[in-house]
Amino acid sequence: MKQITSKSNEYIKNIRRLKQKKFRDETGNYYIEGLRLIGEALRTDTHLESILFCSDLLISDFGLQAIKIAEEKGIEIIEVTEEIFQSFSLKEGPQGLAAVGKQKWIDLDEVISPKGLWIVLDKIQDPGNLGTIMRSLDGAGGKGLILVGNSTDAYHPTAVRSSTGALFSKSICKTTESKLIDWKKTTTVPFIGTVCETAISYKQYEYPEDMILFMGSEQKGLQKEIIAICDELITIPMGGSVDSLNLACAASIVLFEIYDKRNRK
Amino acid sequence: MKQITSKSNEYIKNIRRLKQKKFRDETGNYYIEGLRLIGEALRTDTHLESILFCSDLLISDFGLQAIKIAEEKGIEIIEVTEEIFQSFSLKEGPQGLAAVGKQKWIDLDEVISPKGLWIVLDKIQDPGNLGTIMRSLDGAGGKGLILVGNSTDAYHPTAVRSSTGALFSKSICKTTESKLIDWKKTTTVPFIGTVCETAISYKQYEYPEDMILFMGSEQKGLQKEIIAICDELITIPMGGSVDSLNLACAASIVLFEIYDKRNRK
Repeated sequence: MKQITSKSNEYIKNIRRLKQKKFRDETGNYYIEGLRLIGEALRTDTHLESILFCSDLLISDFGLQAIKIAEEKGIEIIEVTEEIFQSFSLKEGPQGLAAVGKQKWIDLDEVISPKGLWIVLDKIQDPGNLGTIMRSLDGAGGKGLILVGNSTDAYHPTAVRSSTGALFSKSICKTTESKLIDWKKTTTVPFIGTVCETAISYKQYEYPEDMILFMGSEQKGLQKEIIAICDELITIPMGGSVDSLNLACAASIVLFEIYDKRNRK
Repeated sequence: MKQITSKSNEYIKNIRRLKQKKFRDETGNYYIEGLRLIGEALRTDTHLESILFCSDLLISDFGLQAIKIAEEKGIEIIEVTEEIFQSFSLKEGPQGLAAVGKQKWIDLDEVISPKGLWIVLDKIQDPGNLGTIMRSLDGAGGKGLILVGNSTDAYHPTAVRSSTGALFSKSICKTTESKLIDWKKTTTVPFIGTVCETAISYKQYEYPEDMILFMGSEQKGLQKEIIAICDELITIPMGGSVDSLNLACAASIVLFEIYDKRNRK
């Protein structure tokens, strides 16, 4: 076990830099905080570079147990002072347990014939929505996530937190519009697009066993180029005066309809 | 039309103070920003005290039209400088249109026999979730919202924004646990509680025409005292490794199941 006592230690500075996408991209690292998330990362054998704890803050048995498990797994354990922990913590009332994880992306080419339920998010902007959708995807028995174009980062601290650990168990891929369009020529799995315009109700559609659900961005929905490669378009009929739903809510409504239809088979 | 050119003008200072719940409670005012939201407030005859605009920022015809409509309705119009607008704006890249609204709460006693679909949120903590649930409630044809106990504020700027205007058309009530328990003795409308534990699947349940759906807080779910007054408990069956869904997503899944079942009747 290592101890760090200076806030200006290079490793600690780098942890603070993980809030920046540029630095996450350069290093392939990301920041994880909190008992539940780190417990879930350890349970799923997620690749962690280090675990940081502060003994003045970490009072939970679960947390102390997590450190033991991490040590047995050969993960570097670093003890820091409360001042240091507070310098990188993103929580009000931090629990004194954090980690540096190694990002894990799969390439679109590796997903030649996806099995089960996948979701494509086309230019999603909000990391909270992204994490929340991963959480719902996991709850609905989904397998993986494909981010298209200029999307927000799956390893943004807010996405990590709001995924409540679903991030660790799902396959995550990022790609471009043109690669996705090329990929469509090689894969037989159906592309089901979700749109606000008139289309088949998500309730009426018979979802295939293997499928990819497409959702667009918060502001603009699915791009035309993406709609063009969808095999089917579905929509969520609505009342009231709002003209759309929050993206994570819309995704969850469709995902749980699919989950229910599968389970009834 | 009035003009204000000083950031330290008392009215402008008070607009900035509307970020604080204490000040919102004291004045009964709240802050609204953006073209779509203010368009929706005007369309629904929401009580606005004033509209503030900055001619250097407000370039949209829709926005200029909104000011005309507001003037015809007798709402005070205040022109401010860009510096002033930026001093209270909560947006990156503000559109130059904001308003001060008057909060509208109904009393629980006024809701003696609620018609249609209502939702009770028991100690909800996150204003983003609250706004998002109002948006989904509206989309699912719901009528009103009852906040119980130490909930976040429906007029928090984040709740207002994420409601995308649903806030203006729904009846909103806040009450205490004990008042709600007393109220249960006088009303015949069924209370349907949503829980994580074993209960009837939300898919199997036959929802009555008039009903109140109960959702608990993000961290703790429904309180025991509230579960005790529910006529029925439902749950969302899940797979994967996550143990719950985001509150707004869970609410949306149930609300849209209810909406679909009603429309099929």
